[in-house]
Amino acid sequence: MPTIRVGLAQINPVVGDLTGNVERIAAVMAKADEQGCDLLALPELAITGYPPEDLLLRPSFVRDNLAALDEVVARSGRCVTLVGFVDSASAHDQEPERASDAADGEEHSLAVPSRPVIFNAAAACAEGRMIGCYRKRKLPNYSVFDEQRYFTVGDTDVSLFVVAGVPVGLSICEDAWTDDGPIAELGRAGAALVVNINASPYNRGKREARLAVVQARAREADAVLAYVNQVGGQDELVFDGDSMVVAPDGAVLARAPQFAEGLFAVDVEVPDRTPDPSRTLVEGPPPPSERPAVVPVGVAPPVGEDEEVWQALVLGTRDFVRKNGFSDVVIGLSGGIDSALVAAIAVDALGADHVHGVLMPSRYSSDHSISDAEALAANLGIEHRTIPIEPAHAALMGMLEPSFEGHPLGLTEENLQSRIRAVILMALSNAFGWLLLNTGNKSESSVGYSTLYGDSAGGFAVIKDVSKLLVYRLCRHRNELAGRELIPANVLLKPPSAELRPGQRDDQSLPPYEVLDPILSLYVEDDLAADDIVAAGYEPSTVDRVTRLVDLAEYKRRQSPPGPRVTPKGFGKDRRLPIVNRYRR
Amino acid sequence: MPTIRVGLAQINPVVGDLTGNVERIAAVMAKADEQGCDLLALPELAITGYPPEDLLLRPSFVRDNLAALDEVVARSGRCVTLVGFVDSASAHDQEPERASDAADGEEHSLAVPSRPVIFNAAAACAEGRMIGCYRKRKLPNYSVFDEQRYFTVGDTDVSLFVVAGVPVGLSICEDAWTDDGPIAELGRAGAALVVNINASPYNRGKREARLAVVQARAREADAVLAYVNQVGGQDELVFDGDSMVVAPDGAVLARAPQFAEGLFAVDVEVPDRTPDPSRTLVEGPPPPSERPAVVPVGVAPPVGEDEEVWQALVLGTRDFVRKNGFSDVVIGLSGGIDSALVAAIAVDALGADHVHGVLMPSRYSSDHSISDAEALAANLGIEHRTIPIEPAHAALMGMLEPSFEGHPLGLTEENLQSRIRAVILMALSNAFGWLLLNTGNKSESSVGYSTLYGDSAGGFAVIKDVSKLLVYRLCRHRNELAGRELIPANVLLKPPSAELRPGQRDDQSLPPYEVLDPILSLYVEDDLAADDIVAAGYEPSTVDRVTRLVDLAEYKRRQSPPGPRVTPKGFGKDRRLPIVNRYRR
Repeated sequence: MPTIRVGLAQINPVVGDLTGNVERIAAVMAKADEQGCDLLALPELAITGYPPEDLLLRPSFVRDNLAALDEVVARSGRCVTLVGFVDSASAHDQEPERASDAADGEEHSLAVPSRPVIFNAAAACAEGRMIGCYRKRKLPNYSVFDEQRYFTVGDTDVSLFVVAGVPVGLSICEDAWTDDGPIAELGRAGAALVVNINASPYNRGKREARLAVVQARAREADAVLAYVNQVGGQDELVFDGDSMVVAPDGAVLARAPQFAEGLFAVDVEVPDRTPDPSRTLVEGPPPPSERPAVVPVGVAPPVGEDEEVWQALVLGTRDFVRKNGFSDVVIGLSGGIDSALVAAIAVDALGADHVHGVLMPSRYSSDHSISDAEALAANLGIEHRTIPIEPAHAALMGMLEPSFEGHPLGLTEENLQSRIRAVILMALSNAFGWLLLNTGNKSESSVGYSTLYGDSAGGFAVIKDVSKLLVYRLCRHRNELAGRELIPANVLLKPPSAELRPGQRDDQSLPPYEVLDPILSLYVEDDLAADDIVAAGYEPSTVDRVTRLVDLAEYKRRQSPPGPRVTPKGFGKDRRLPIVNRYRR
Repeated sequence: MPTIRVGLAQINPVVGDLTGNVERIAAVMAKADEQGCDLLALPELAITGYPPEDLLLRPSFVRDNLAALDEVVARSGRCVTLVGFVDSASAHDQEPERASDAADGEEHSLAVPSRPVIFNAAAACAEGRMIGCYRKRKLPNYSVFDEQRYFTVGDTDVSLFVVAGVPVGLSICEDAWTDDGPIAELGRAGAALVVNINASPYNRGKREARLAVVQARAREADAVLAYVNQVGGQDELVFDGDSMVVAPDGAVLARAPQFAEGLFAVDVEVPDRTPDPSRTLVEGPPPPSERPAVVPVGVAPPVGEDEEVWQALVLGTRDFVRKNGFSDVVIGLSGGIDSALVAAIAVDALGADHVHGVLMPSRYSSDHSISDAEALAANLGIEHRTIPIEPAHAALMGMLEPSFEGHPLGLTEENLQSRIRAVILMALSNAFGWLLLNTGNKSESSVGYSTLYGDSAGGFAVIKDVSKLLVYRLCRHRNELAGRELIPANVLLKPPSAELRPGQRDDQSLPPYEVLDPILSLYVEDDLAADDIVAAGYEPSTVDRVTRLVDLAEYKRRQSPPGPRVTPKGFGKDRRLPIVNRYRR
């Protein structure tokens, strides 16, 4: 059986950073040549970063991306490099089938300049020349993906590339998620190796789902499948790498670690195949006469369910902070478990020197909330300060007294305290250039158990896709990893409370999290109706109340900060619900 | 030439309000029967309201919508009613072409229950029976539209309906925005009348664009085109009605007013046509022996550019407030022009008794800011109160002093004041159940000239898609309409200022709005590159600074409230840019 050395490049591109991405790509191209790779696979849209969203609607962006590709091509060496970019229909192209084929109708009528027809594409280049190109055929338009908003479906007549004597077929991401789709076709055309380049975001369970799909495609195509995925955080998405090579029988030949950047070179034995002579065959450079030995990549084992989420949150936070040009963050430390978890993640992401804690006790704060927060800050080794909110609390209550005369205040005064804290945190953020990390969890955000412009404030919401029960698990996991009570035991043991009135506890307003979280998961993530959830064994009045709270909190979530998505459905681009919405089921 | 009486139903459905929408539809069906209509056209997705967004992903929602349709069908009378609903593929359907045909791949792997294949459809019903159905073929997936996220493309083999002896073809919204598309095909099949049902949102210039498209389709099909559109606000979208009937030669036979609910019955002469015998022909009930006379609808003239925007803002505001169950709103009155405009719109939308103004002077406020705000409140006849922010300002500065020691405060103290005002307004909102209206304009929002959680706060941002220059025009327009200085002359004359430091004026931080607004329009609405804007005659350093400010403010806009869209590109679902974004052009 012929052998080919394939380099899987788990790089971390930055959206819109065309110059920087070219350098990232050039560096890994040089390394692949050094390591004697025949083929180097880079992620989907590596030139632009993924997802570029509406930058794709700017003709200048598409032009600049093509210029960046030219530079990558010019710097390509012996190794055949496959790199994702945005292709543009040139004048000689046939009238293409457009994914959204009426998209220009309205715009033309409004005399807006027409936009270029563009493709999500992969270039093949070597020795300073572009040798071919593939245009993605399956465009995902569900969950967090909007590709039919931008891209035209690629042509069905695709080339095979002969690299080191091996017929290679190209495909991009979603092409692999269809039975009997583009990859099966490449198999029938005689590809011995199919490369699939990806920008595939992480969520819990994705690693298993991804492997099953890659194995199904390898078997279907009766070819080796080389899957490469980027690493890094981009707004709400976290990309986890997990690149792999799978044999035609589904055996995993190599699997790179999740969340780690790097070039992973794999020597792959491929089956003998005779390409369909009716296909265009593109010849790559001949293989080198000799190659250096490379360390086998091996098959990285799973890191464990909680550690996987932990690493996603750390990477997502680090990249959001740094890619936005911040070095430091500020966190309100309440002594509770949510802010403790966020602080621990921030320290892992940025280092203790870059994390600043603020304790803001009120007239209703318990002694333990202060001592627990102080113990946490000491354990984490972070700078912290204490700013009691009483003076502002008293001033504002006095200012509002004439308006509130005789009016019961309850919730209004609770929200007031939460907003005073946001004012303090944002003042520190403004003065010192620290990004404010929000500490709300998914259970709270689901039912609106938060104060808009109060504890809902922040530049990045680290645990917005983490349910309260998972918050506990992640804290325990981190403590185990540390081998000590990094997060103080009392934080984990005391009953959750917002401490906005004397003796307040979460369970006075909400069902216990052991009941709440599973209902939320069924309603929010699985789109089940209230009736279905009751049928699953939950108390009707609780289900009714919880689902109603979720619906009514939509307006708060619409104004909430972004945060890393770790479930199959977060409160971001993957859940688009109207605010005006009278449906109650 | 045969004649048919067509009822155009400009109703105002509410998203998710299936029961309420059935009643709205039943009421207009009864009226159409009374008026002797042969055909009644209701808007696209009238059963569910438009756009239902991710409610469509809930199987229970699709089921409940079908039950609601059953009730509409059961209550249908002699008049053939065309009504938009969500159709679901039944078991005997062929395997359909799916818009996003790989959408299920990933979900199946994650063991999420598979979703029904659904269509954006129109039912034809009469005398208690469903007589046929049409499924939309062109699914918009650009601008504010995401229809390929949800719907499958309709079958190409469509029926003609014979109503009062006239062969009628059905089409839905986007079907009309393609040259030589579904409507041309209906013409070739022998339709004498083509009905196009819509949920077509308003923006400036849309009325003209829409007419041109409807005329093009009528000529192409050589048939009469009856276009019906809903009325009302739904989150950021405002639907303006503007239903019309256009002759095969493009002559406008009838045109209903914008922004007005109602049933508009039109007697239409249609050309003689012989339907293609290979088409399925569905027979509707025979025409009535006699009909009551109806008042001719006539051709509503345009209301003028500024009045059109005014009506859109009033309707968008009224519907957002009321459909969300609020009756009253609260507005911070600064004495400036933005809050004056918002207050005037709110009074037109809700009545003066439902609008509450709050003056919140600071140590830096000018005398005129108070007197102008008081004069405005008096002119509008709205309740108002004054709450000076000094006590909270002093308290917070004192609380922060130890942190800020030796640190220049400038912007931090400005933001602090803005946030104190938001705390006060939200306290009143919480205590009295008043929705807070935000008063930021599009120019400010574009360049981030606002304080996050300060003046950026609110439940609805009435003028978020109105540039500063248009703010002035709208104020003058409203004063002209009133025949007096409803908005005090001084508010219009004084230079804009945030009054957050002594002697502050907008033009110290920003270019004059006469320069800023056109640059913003080219960059934000037309997606031009900075180079192109410079080529259009603007000063390079100004263009550079402005476009950079727009890019950097993305994080603030992501947390801003919704507001009515009145331009072809607002800061909502129609402009999806990443926060992490290093592209600068």
